[in-house]
Amino acid sequence: MALARHFPRPLKAGARVAVVAPASPPQNVQALEVGIARLEKAGLQIERGRTLTAQRGYLAGSDVLRAEELNHYFRRPDIHAIFCARGGYGCLRLLPLLDYEAAIRMPKLIIGYSDITALQLAVLAQAGVPGLSGPMVAVDWPVLDTETEARFWELAQGATPDPLPLVGSAKLHVLRPGDAKGPLVGGTLSVLVRLLGTPYLPDLTGSILFLEDVGEAPYRIDGMLAQLRLAGVLDRLAGVVLGQFTKSDPVSETPSLTLGEVLEDYFGQASYPVVVGFPYGHQPQKNTLPIGTQACLQAHGDTATLRLLEPVVR
Amino acid sequence: MALARHFPRPLKAGARVAVVAPASPPQNVQALEVGIARLEKAGLQIERGRTLTAQRGYLAGSDVLRAEELNHYFRRPDIHAIFCARGGYGCLRLLPLLDYEAAIRMPKLIIGYSDITALQLAVLAQAGVPGLSGPMVAVDWPVLDTETEARFWELAQGATPDPLPLVGSAKLHVLRPGDAKGPLVGGTLSVLVRLLGTPYLPDLTGSILFLEDVGEAPYRIDGMLAQLRLAGVLDRLAGVVLGQFTKSDPVSETPSLTLGEVLEDYFGQASYPVVVGFPYGHQPQKNTLPIGTQACLQAHGDTATLRLLEPVVR
Repeated sequence: MALARHFPRPLKAGARVAVVAPASPPQNVQALEVGIARLEKAGLQIERGRTLTAQRGYLAGSDVLRAEELNHYFRRPDIHAIFCARGGYGCLRLLPLLDYEAAIRMPKLIIGYSDITALQLAVLAQAGVPGLSGPMVAVDWPVLDTETEARFWELAQGATPDPLPLVGSAKLHVLRPGDAKGPLVGGTLSVLVRLLGTPYLPDLTGSILFLEDVGEAPYRIDGMLAQLRLAGVLDRLAGVVLGQFTKSDPVSETPSLTLGEVLEDYFGQASYPVVVGFPYGHQPQKNTLPIGTQACLQAHGDTATLRLLEPVVR
Repeated sequence: MALARHFPRPLKAGARVAVVAPASPPQNVQALEVGIARLEKAGLQIERGRTLTAQRGYLAGSDVLRAEELNHYFRRPDIHAIFCARGGYGCLRLLPLLDYEAAIRMPKLIIGYSDITALQLAVLAQAGVPGLSGPMVAVDWPVLDTETEARFWELAQGATPDPLPLVGSAKLHVLRPGDAKGPLVGGTLSVLVRLLGTPYLPDLTGSILFLEDVGEAPYRIDGMLAQLRLAGVLDRLAGVVLGQFTKSDPVSETPSLTLGEVLEDYFGQASYPVVVGFPYGHQPQKNTLPIGTQACLQAHGDTATLRLLEPVVR
């Protein structure tokens, strides 16, 4: 079961944190600076990784540079958390190079989403350390609204909102009813499925899986869900929380199933609760979600509630 | 090891074959008719599947219709081979619904590529029946040149060209030198990796893996190869034959590694022979390749040779 065992410390004002780019480099230096300024204003002391200014194609420097930087911060007792500047692509390349023992000795929150999903799931699978699927420094922090920021800090400081207040007064839609209790695990679907068949995907048996994605046409989402089903993952879940699938329009003029039809095909007959419309994904306004801590999903009639049962930091 | 154990009969003039659409429907009815006419002219008796005229979004009818049609032809003793009209997307959905016992009792060549890769690899993994990664009826047959057609019929009729003559006098480039002997297995990379973590990917230990793809940017190819590496597959191969990666340009203006750099990153230090430039992929002129039969790859200096050591039909 994908339940965290080693917990980071609460992220308080005055804490020193690292800002790094383990996947692609920040696209906009100015946005990165605005994001860092927001974190400083919130009271954090920022240490900038060398990857913030490195580049090799779509990668923020070589694999060795990016992996060694993460390992360096994993090992530093004075670093409380690792904020990722941006996703893009590149974390998959690092997974065999990381010092998971150091992650166990000094558990730290890794904060980000999109490609960062690979890093967070690998650290949960290999080290039992939870993560926070939330705003990134060069992408979201420059434009973060107060509600999205408040929801982030609550979790990073150890609150267990019960029920979790949904950003923007979002309303969940019940695709399948039921009650689930289990570790909340997930991230970006296209990245998560890249871990199937490898030692870096946590055992999702009994989990409440949350998913989102961007820029993937319905037939691609279909293929990803097919792989999850063929791998036996969908049968073993306790529940599913579907976030936003943005820019998921069908390819040009070819006929297509809609995204809704695809989701219905895979989840419409599920024996566990499935909800859609969760405010989470590649959009500025969103809830942050913990990865690897106990939660409870209740979906009945037209009402659904997600409750967090334990803090992600201790 | 992914070695075929149950062999189809040679595909001779007069044989009855099925033409089906197990993934997406044919895009062009006229092209389908021209392709069928080509097969008839070659002496085959054609049985048209109902999926050729069915549609549900990007699928050629419901999963049950497509799976039951395949099973029907698997079980029919008078059907010698199954020609696929087109790829697209949809075979992944069928894999748990297929009658692999029937495929073992009456082995038949499944002919196609692209999305059909999933079907061919599943039938090799679950039934030990080889396939032919070759031209599709509504896509390639309407425009097939005589050389591409000749190379197809040679294999379908049981020849073992030694060495395999390359269509269009293509020249292989040696990325890594060496000698390999093992089952030739492969297809479209993006489809093959969707089988990782499922029971439908043959054990690739000791295999000569051949790969091609279409419409996948370098960062996506990178992610697919990363998954193969993380799953331990790349370490266990005997050799690699890289075909064409068409329409693989980087996304818009974002910086990118080139496809060549990506391939170098994953194969440049391989301990086995790796060749690039094989005439195989989403292009009209190409070699057909067997899936699951013994082959030998020799790559030295600037010369590389692929030899087929056993026929794909008996």
